[in-house]
Amino acid sequence: MAELKNRQWLLAVRPQGLIKESDFRWNETAVAPLNDGQVLIRNLAFSFDPTQRGWMSIDTYMPAIPLGEVMKAGAVGQVVESRRPELATGDLVQGLFGWEDYTVSAGGGLMGLRKLPPDTDPILALSLLGTTGLTAYFGTLSVGQVKQGDTFVVSGAAGATGSVAGMIAKIKGCRVVGIAGGPDKCDWLTREAGFDAAIDYKNENVGDALTRHCSKGIDVYFDNVGGEILDLALARLANGARVVLCGAISRYNEAAGVAGWGPKNYFNLIFRGARMEGFLVFHFAKRYPEAIDDLTRCYAEGQIKNKIDLVQGLENAPKTIIRLFTGANFGKQLLKLADPQ
Amino acid sequence: MAELKNRQWLLAVRPQGLIKESDFRWNETAVAPLNDGQVLIRNLAFSFDPTQRGWMSIDTYMPAIPLGEVMKAGAVGQVVESRRPELATGDLVQGLFGWEDYTVSAGGGLMGLRKLPPDTDPILALSLLGTTGLTAYFGTLSVGQVKQGDTFVVSGAAGATGSVAGMIAKIKGCRVVGIAGGPDKCDWLTREAGFDAAIDYKNENVGDALTRHCSKGIDVYFDNVGGEILDLALARLANGARVVLCGAISRYNEAAGVAGWGPKNYFNLIFRGARMEGFLVFHFAKRYPEAIDDLTRCYAEGQIKNKIDLVQGLENAPKTIIRLFTGANFGKQLLKLADPQ
Repeated sequence: MAELKNRQWLLAVRPQGLIKESDFRWNETAVAPLNDGQVLIRNLAFSFDPTQRGWMSIDTYMPAIPLGEVMKAGAVGQVVESRRPELATGDLVQGLFGWEDYTVSAGGGLMGLRKLPPDTDPILALSLLGTTGLTAYFGTLSVGQVKQGDTFVVSGAAGATGSVAGMIAKIKGCRVVGIAGGPDKCDWLTREAGFDAAIDYKNENVGDALTRHCSKGIDVYFDNVGGEILDLALARLANGARVVLCGAISRYNEAAGVAGWGPKNYFNLIFRGARMEGFLVFHFAKRYPEAIDDLTRCYAEGQIKNKIDLVQGLENAPKTIIRLFTGANFGKQLLKLADPQ
Repeated sequence: MAELKNRQWLLAVRPQGLIKESDFRWNETAVAPLNDGQVLIRNLAFSFDPTQRGWMSIDTYMPAIPLGEVMKAGAVGQVVESRRPELATGDLVQGLFGWEDYTVSAGGGLMGLRKLPPDTDPILALSLLGTTGLTAYFGTLSVGQVKQGDTFVVSGAAGATGSVAGMIAKIKGCRVVGIAGGPDKCDWLTREAGFDAAIDYKNENVGDALTRHCSKGIDVYFDNVGGEILDLALARLANGARVVLCGAISRYNEAAGVAGWGPKNYFNLIFRGARMEGFLVFHFAKRYPEAIDDLTRCYAEGQIKNKIDLVQGLENAPKTIIRLFTGANFGKQLLKLADPQ
């Protein structure tokens, strides 16, 4: 096989506050020959997730990415060459790959190396049926324990996880209130996504609006942003409320430089007999197949919309991750490199 | 009936920081004649609870005590005169009475007016079998969901609720670690109360000691103090951990002037798939009888010790409540006025 050129983005420095383009360094190299047990993957599309901010900074549920190494991302790719028995050239695979044209993988790691059905849409696999949608699914149903008649509030509501969480809660018969930034996102929530109400945090007093839209208090608050909005929600819990903390918030807070901050209204958990519970989607890995089946069905039936914010081209990867933390993205942020062949 | 003199402590000012004796004002008055539906109660003993700090300050789960009115307390008394059909002179009753010789009650309110069996020990009714022991019972079993083999950590461990919580966890087969202030309390925990280990926060680095005593992480943390120790525990949670927030902590924090503070390590709930859940003992009111039966049996069998810190005389009530917040009390803080007749 002819030597393949590989273009890459390396992690250059650990970010301080918001991620900057200069935190990454462009590199061009050659793909090394494969060893037994490895596959060579051509990357087709990358997922962008708030948790990547953590990978760049500190050891979390996985070790921090070493400086000078390729930036990691949830990705879908296509096998170019395989020295693993279960994979063949042309197979579509999903896993934790890198910001590069080609990734050599031996499987293992947090996300493994999962073979996808041949007709898989990489975009769908990385959004509604990827960690984004799965986080919404388990956060809403298993952690949040939503039930008919609950008042369900979600922040980051126009984002990839928040919008799906709200649509799932709606299917379950909740009154759904979303908090998002700007009139376009809020219009989309109520007109397209089926939310009962939307609060524009850029143009409204969020506390007053929550009080107005949640006259019986908040039964489930799905937190995607932390910070002041978490405190405003904590202050308005109904008795027996559930506050769902998903992985995103720590990274948002870290990016905003407020990692040392805790929610002062956590006392209200006592008065309301309420709970605040965290999770990582990986805790539910054994139940992914049932969730993917459910989400696929709801998507096919039009009950869940899959809003995508798609950027093209490897060279734009740093610009694209920055969109996540400035609120520029509207829907699941993805970057596409190529179509399957 | 001859006119009875009533000595009282009124709430004079709302406390700033720690409670001071000057927050109360001594008053002497006459007991008013009874109306239909009322009973006249001679107070025998008062309970002292951190939550009283809240009653003095702000509307919580009940309205703040108005300035100039009698300070309230959980109490046991004896009926002197009754204009209620279900109560007769000589009956022992428990409820939310006042810091005064005689209280006129029409029942109702948060704690009601509960008739006790004639052979009841007022001291036991206000400690192990009162809100203190019940808080430990429901916090450990229903909220904390302790199970065999769990590592159970409790702060304020030599206090009334903390010590009972630890002893219940021990009965359930947990490894029990208590955090308390000073060698006397710590010795009592390991020698008398059956704790596996005690950490003296006044003389040890609590974080290091928690790491040493909880090598597999903390499965259940029963929080009685909030503040820095809550953060140290949050940083050391095991996967799937439960953090129990009981009413006490808000009042302790308020007394220390740190009500605006939140636990910065709450993010660890996400990484550990853990929950932090609050409760007030009143949420479990329907299950009090089963809990009292259980606690009575464990006490009779010697599995649970009931450590009491007893002060005598109404005139000492303000001094006694202050003991709670300075850590001076060792065991359940009570004040005795008289024996039943």
